[in-house]
Amino acid sequence: MPKPPRILATRPAPATSFLRIEQVDLEFSNGVRCTFERMLPSGLGAVMIVPMLDAETVLLVREYAVGVERYELGLPKGRIEPGESIEAGAGREMQEEVGYGARRLLRLTTLTLSPAYMTHRTHVVLAQDLYPRRLPGDEPEPLEVVPWKLAELHTLLGHAEVSEGRSIAALFMAREHLAGRYSP
Amino acid sequence: MPKPPRILATRPAPATSFLRIEQVDLEFSNGVRCTFERMLPSGLGAVMIVPMLDAETVLLVREYAVGVERYELGLPKGRIEPGESIEAGAGREMQEEVGYGARRLLRLTTLTLSPAYMTHRTHVVLAQDLYPRRLPGDEPEPLEVVPWKLAELHTLLGHAEVSEGRSIAALFMAREHLAGRYSP
Repeated sequence: MPKPPRILATRPAPATSFLRIEQVDLEFSNGVRCTFERMLPSGLGAVMIVPMLDAETVLLVREYAVGVERYELGLPKGRIEPGESIEAGAGREMQEEVGYGARRLLRLTTLTLSPAYMTHRTHVVLAQDLYPRRLPGDEPEPLEVVPWKLAELHTLLGHAEVSEGRSIAALFMAREHLAGRYSP
Repeated sequence: MPKPPRILATRPAPATSFLRIEQVDLEFSNGVRCTFERMLPSGLGAVMIVPMLDAETVLLVREYAVGVERYELGLPKGRIEPGESIEAGAGREMQEEVGYGARRLLRLTTLTLSPAYMTHRTHVVLAQDLYPRRLPGDEPEPLEVVPWKLAELHTLLGHAEVSEGRSIAALFMAREHLAGRYSP
């Protein structure tokens, strides 16, 4: 596991920053009015990939997460780029972060983070029939790839580096799909 | 299902708003420097409750979510108030949103939303041995309570109002715990 990065400085973000907040005035159907805050959408949404190395093994990545200031173990993910389809974004991110391409990609679902105050959407894509292929990514350091058995998801839940709701949800949804209990 | 509220106005949030963004300068162990953005923590964290009406039935709530501008079906949740323990916050939110208290509360895990750019933490609490008890909440309209069988989680996954990764993750983790496969 790499040594975590050092925080050199922090400052309030300028109004032109990537992440932005707005206020919304609402009137409910019962006449009650109130003001909520929400994050504005940034870009075209995100894609999260469930890369299946074989029928039983998913590939996770260990990546530094500055929100919690430690390494987090979870599914590979990234932002969709302009002009890119969800599937193309999933294929590119896999090649950048995991070092594999996929011959079969299936959209499983679209997840939100906190729909009460976030507009962000994450498209979850199941990737099967993998082949080794590496694309250079924009990560500041290479990501460690960690294989995990889908039958052992419950052992992942107590792992100190596993906390992202979106990633846990996508793993269980993929398992339900592969067991024939859920279809998108 | 209630009629959704009407959006009266939106505006950029002032610098004093509840949700705030900062920039962070980082130096990775390989010497690479970069600047990330992240949301600042707002308050004491959140609590999400898995209220079990009986051994098989969980109680969900349908609540308006302005981030996605529709009603979302998921677990009850809310912010922890000053001076409140996680368990006390869980008990209060349940009584406000679901109309039940709980004689048994167990912390299952702590989830993050997007650890790469969010500091937020959500404590997931399993609530059992319920009894009817209603506290007035701060919701602009009463929430609809929807019972769901834990054995039927896979049918919830395709529901048009179910998208919150954190809620889906907590439901599967509770099911793994109740099946004896995961302990906090």
